[in-house]
Amino acid sequence: MTELTNSILDPKNLRAQIRDGRFLGPTAGHGGDALQANLVILPGEDAQDFLRFCQANPQPCPLLAVGEPGNPALPTLGDIDLRHDLPLYRVWRDGELVEEPIDIADLWRDDMVSFAIGCSFSFEDALTRAGIPVRHQLAGRNVPMYRTNLATRPAGKFSGPVVVSMRAMPAADAIQAVSICQRFPLAHGAPVHLGDPSQIGIADIHQPDYGDAPDIRPGDIPVFWACGVTPQAAIVAAKPALAITHAPGHMLVTDIPSGQADRRLTGVHAG
Amino acid sequence: MTELTNSILDPKNLRAQIRDGRFLGPTAGHGGDALQANLVILPGEDAQDFLRFCQANPQPCPLLAVGEPGNPALPTLGDIDLRHDLPLYRVWRDGELVEEPIDIADLWRDDMVSFAIGCSFSFEDALTRAGIPVRHQLAGRNVPMYRTNLATRPAGKFSGPVVVSMRAMPAADAIQAVSICQRFPLAHGAPVHLGDPSQIGIADIHQPDYGDAPDIRPGDIPVFWACGVTPQAAIVAAKPALAITHAPGHMLVTDIPSGQADRRLTGVHAG
Repeated sequence: MTELTNSILDPKNLRAQIRDGRFLGPTAGHGGDALQANLVILPGEDAQDFLRFCQANPQPCPLLAVGEPGNPALPTLGDIDLRHDLPLYRVWRDGELVEEPIDIADLWRDDMVSFAIGCSFSFEDALTRAGIPVRHQLAGRNVPMYRTNLATRPAGKFSGPVVVSMRAMPAADAIQAVSICQRFPLAHGAPVHLGDPSQIGIADIHQPDYGDAPDIRPGDIPVFWACGVTPQAAIVAAKPALAITHAPGHMLVTDIPSGQADRRLTGVHAG
Repeated sequence: MTELTNSILDPKNLRAQIRDGRFLGPTAGHGGDALQANLVILPGEDAQDFLRFCQANPQPCPLLAVGEPGNPALPTLGDIDLRHDLPLYRVWRDGELVEEPIDIADLWRDDMVSFAIGCSFSFEDALTRAGIPVRHQLAGRNVPMYRTNLATRPAGKFSGPVVVSMRAMPAADAIQAVSICQRFPLAHGAPVHLGDPSQIGIADIHQPDYGDAPDIRPGDIPVFWACGVTPQAAIVAAKPALAITHAPGHMLVTDIPSGQADRRLTGVHAG
């Protein structure tokens, strides 16, 4: 199928294509309005520590769903089989990236716990609809991300700096962005900082640690959100014997419309 | 009665004391949690223009209540008689301040329309409860206010710059303050600017146009709200034949608890 047909697929169809190996590319822009998530899979005791790490650090690690040990399903997010439903995975052993497979069925263990973590892409649509330019999107670049001097609250073997993403905009837009994003706690919520980057330990805003260099215009104020690279960096630093994550840009596509994520995943649901 | 007894009076008792001429001082800190409001009284055609001016500029001029022509009552705010219930008034003729009486019964006309306008003091309690230091309060000073290069939308004879109040605080508090204050549209709502004062035409943040010089600490970012001096400045500039306002610090004390203002004054009420 062509790229154009893929881009109008609904998330169930997209996951079916991914499962069959017919869709391999980055997931941004595909699956309609469906929430896309970061994926972390850890076995045994490391999974227990990581769950506590996410609970202690909800802004960088907003949990959308946690799987039962050994179960590759995440039923609250859709009819998902995590062994096949991402287009590309990363496998880490002792903190080293050892392979990037398109399928992890061979690696699956009965003590594996899956974590779907929210992503800031889920609020960018709301910013755009509010008339706030999302500059890296308009430039066709990846969002710039930075390690900061803000520390996560540690849990078990997991600790490390808060990593932030940055979007520069006029001050009046920054005020609107706070109002908008505080409605999306499952997509990292409100910004954690704005203004002077050195106040959070960023030496040069034009040299991000991850992603692409930013587009900052005269009169802009930089706005910083907690970012999903935070848990990834914590995992790499903790050097667990085995960890599986999504490959950058190759996210878990859920069935939840972005705008409904918080209500459907955290509210009381009809029985 | 002593100052101490006055400070625990409920708003009805406080207005009774004011009406009898037994309470003369500034109203800040008195009347418990009751919403305090700016007052503007204009006759005839000027009142019509001013109502449209407030409708067009809701952030600087958030209307709590508008009286019927000739009626000194504001029944949605309490059992109020505006001819007696403020401790000090200002009378303006052709744009000049001509007297500061404690009672305006002699001046009352049957075409006078009263406007009760919200005040930012109503959200300062929420900021303090959120752990955000309100620096001018802690310093025992009046809030600094500045004329900006932001223009109000004109209506009839009323126009002029948006005047802002400024509270400096760490960036993380500024983010919280946006979230908090956007819940108080009747107390000016969310800030209108933050960061560089020159972007809104303020030449020297340490030299406000009204109020007292600010307390700004290293690491603070200045945050600016639309301010109730905006309509007052517009009235002075328009030079209406007659206008009556509250004297600075001598506000209309209502019966509405601050935290309930928006719900009780703008929501649908039981019949």
